Amino acid sequence: MNKKTKFEFLGNAAYRITNRKGKIILIDPFLNESDCSPIKVKDLDQVDLILVTHAAWDHMGDTAEIARKFNCPVMCGGEVRHHLIHHEGVDPANVRALCWGLQVVEAGIRVRSITSMHWSFIEYPDGSFISGTPMGFMFYPDPGVRVYHSGDTAIFSDLKLFGQLYQPNIALIVTSMPDSGQLQKHGIPESFCGEMSPHEAALAVLWLGVEYALSNHYSTAKGNPDVEKFVTLVENLHSDEEPVVKPVVLEPGEVWYYPVDEE
Amino acid sequence: MNKKTKFEFLGNAAYRITNRKGKIILIDPFLNESDCSPIKVKDLDQVDLILVTHAAWDHMGDTAEIARKFNCPVMCGGEVRHHLIHHEGVDPANVRALCWGLQVVEAGIRVRSITSMHWSFIEYPDGSFISGTPMGFMFYPDPGVRVYHSGDTAIFSDLKLFGQLYQPNIALIVTSMPDSGQLQKHGIPESFCGEMSPHEAALAVLWLGVEYALSNHYSTAKGNPDVEKFVTLVENLHSDEEPVVKPVVLEPGEVWYYPVDEE
Amino acid sequence: MNKKTKFEFLGNAAYRITNRKGKIILIDPFLNESDCSPIKVKDLDQVDLILVTHAAWDHMGDTAEIARKFNCPVMCGGEVRHHLIHHEGVDPANVRALCWGLQVVEAGIRVRSITSMHWSFIEYPDGSFISGTPMGFMFYPDPGVRVYHSGDTAIFSDLKLFGQLYQPNIALIVTSMPDSGQLQKHGIPESFCGEMSPHEAALAVLWLGVEYALSNHYSTAKGNPDVEKFVTLVENLHSDEEPVVKPVVLEPGEVWYYPVDEE
Repeated sequence: MNKKTKFEFLGNAAYRITNRKGKIILIDPFLNESDCSPIKVKDLDQVDLILVTHAAWDHMGDTAEIARKFNCPVMCGGEVRHHLIHHEGVDPANVRALCWGLQVVEAGIRVRSITSMHWSFIEYPDGSFISGTPMGFMFYPDPGVRVYHSGDTAIFSDLKLFGQLYQPNIALIVTSMPDSGQLQKHGIPESFCGEMSPHEAALAVLWLGVEYALSNHYSTAKGNPDVEKFVTLVENLHSDEEPVVKPVVLEPGEVWYYPVDEE
Repeated sequence: MNKKTKFEFLGNAAYRITNRKGKIILIDPFLNESDCSPIKVKDLDQVDLILVTHAAWDHMGDTAEIARKFNCPVMCGGEVRHHLIHHEGVDPANVRALCWGLQVVEAGIRVRSITSMHWSFIEYPDGSFISGTPMGFMFYPDPGVRVYHSGDTAIFSDLKLFGQLYQPNIALIVTSMPDSGQLQKHGIPESFCGEMSPHEAALAVLWLGVEYALSNHYSTAKGNPDVEKFVTLVENLHSDEEPVVKPVVLEPGEVWYYPVDEE
Repeated sequence: MNKKTKFEFLGNAAYRITNRKGKIILIDPFLNESDCSPIKVKDLDQVDLILVTHAAWDHMGDTAEIARKFNCPVMCGGEVRHHLIHHEGVDPANVRALCWGLQVVEAGIRVRSITSMHWSFIEYPDGSFISGTPMGFMFYPDPGVRVYHSGDTAIFSDLKLFGQLYQPNIALIVTSMPDSGQLQKHGIPESFCGEMSPHEAALAVLWLGVEYALSNHYSTAKGNPDVEKFVTLVENLHSDEEPVVKPVVLEPGEVWYYPVDEE
């Protein structure tokens, strides 16, 4: 039995979370083609649950290969389920399509799908195109640990409502964009910032009312102006002595534990 | 000329509503394969208008067969229209695709499509997949009778706005999930509650400001903890002597009339 | 160098905007089949950027032909990008798919994609169907000129948030519906009003906090009750001597300049 919940950042929007019982959750596992993940699929030795926010290359990533390798459940939207089953040979019994609002338990971990203001689509080599409904996740790896993963949502005010209703204490929040080299490979134009600007990401985590906000959606935080602005804003958008929300900036491969020891 | 508007619950999210002029509206008519509908398509002898919130099996249901049988108009989203016309042989002249915000009159009944935070997709046996935009409906079966059908929406704050703008007096509200046996047949995981938890459904009907909230999305309300919690919350979330919103729990086949006689 | 930003209304939701440096932006260029556009594609002699809010016939319009003719960039959603590249032969290098929240610069003009509560889909003659994510745009044709184009969004409260965050001073706002003859050609039912009612469009522009609101989504404003109601509401929903938001009603072919000379 571990004493803490372990969060390992794998670059972009990917995390490997190990709960106190030793169960391992992967979120948006973009590993093999990632320019920054410290591990590849071959390096994984246990996966108990995969969460996929949407069908994009940098989020769905290597879900199919991992699900086949570990025969583990995947929670995702309807179009991702369709893709995994009909195009990737994943066992249908392992794929759970969650619409917004549903709550399901797998591997002892409760997961709720949350509204996301983004998109989700896949283009196939034969010219066909499918799309669906992206999602955020609220999940509960351990008692008292309530984690929100934003996926790539744009800002929207109901993050306040979700903060009130679900009272997350940790947010894994989109704060920038993948490296432009990776974007170019996928025909995505270079943007000034991520789907939320640093200001919007700071508002989002304040509205959610979390204790800790872990920034993501980048290959490295070093010299990343979006991340710097986000940290500055979160540290200053308060009137208490200490920040209300504490920003946590991880490099790919870095690990963070919750609860945090008081100094 | 009937003196009241008649609401007959047909299980899951299905209703047969008869207005004072005798026009019959079916909403989300999932009948033939339903484990709880008191009637099947063969039992229908009049239908003047069908409303379909989204493409799911338990909502689109038997729309195509009914529309062909009665040659009546259907209001729905673009992907449901596409399916009905191109896969089910429904007369294109009878299918009205409504985007959110539009208002159309058929059979003398005004219908407005309303934002829904859900999904809508269809998988075909050949592996193709289409998706679209789910909807709620605000409709006016009789003068002074303003009905909101939620479809399967998750909670969202603009239900307050719609309460202010459209002032519904009756909500047909998702309060649970279909029976797990039916879910399993369609590969849907068992959820702790419906797309809105009982708490969220109670907030929704308070935000909408309706007089009456009719719970749905279940095969039976007997022993259904979601419905029990919903009723308890709606009856207690107020500071007046009487509840502000009155919950109405119907079993499939039960009928309710509006206005309600004062006792 | 022009002294002002020039807005030319082309009917429906189409605008040709010329900035002070002479760059020309087309939005939702539905021209050749339009019953009211003063120009057709053959009349265009310069286009530097095209913005497409969604895939509908009256918005995507002649985008493909114009993009091929001028070899200019197009900003749009993923399904519109897919259509333009795979069905219309537009050069992939020219098509930028923007999800909500991203900001991109082309032709020196910064463009941000904004949440839209509408739909976007295309039906092909072979029976296939694709759908995606519609968008509004916030764009900055000149310094200090912050323009919001609503596309066909329904009302939603986060227009207040976008007003606060992006402080647009000009709104190009959906206020009615295209002529019923055009709707019938595309199987769209006649609606009482546009995706926003006049009341909702008035609320929207007040929430956005713009100085000027230019109505659109019609073939002519003459005798159009939606436009008349919109103007009356915007002019009266305030407690100052002058309206807070000034409505501007253009006929197709009319031109408006910003800033407006004080009288």
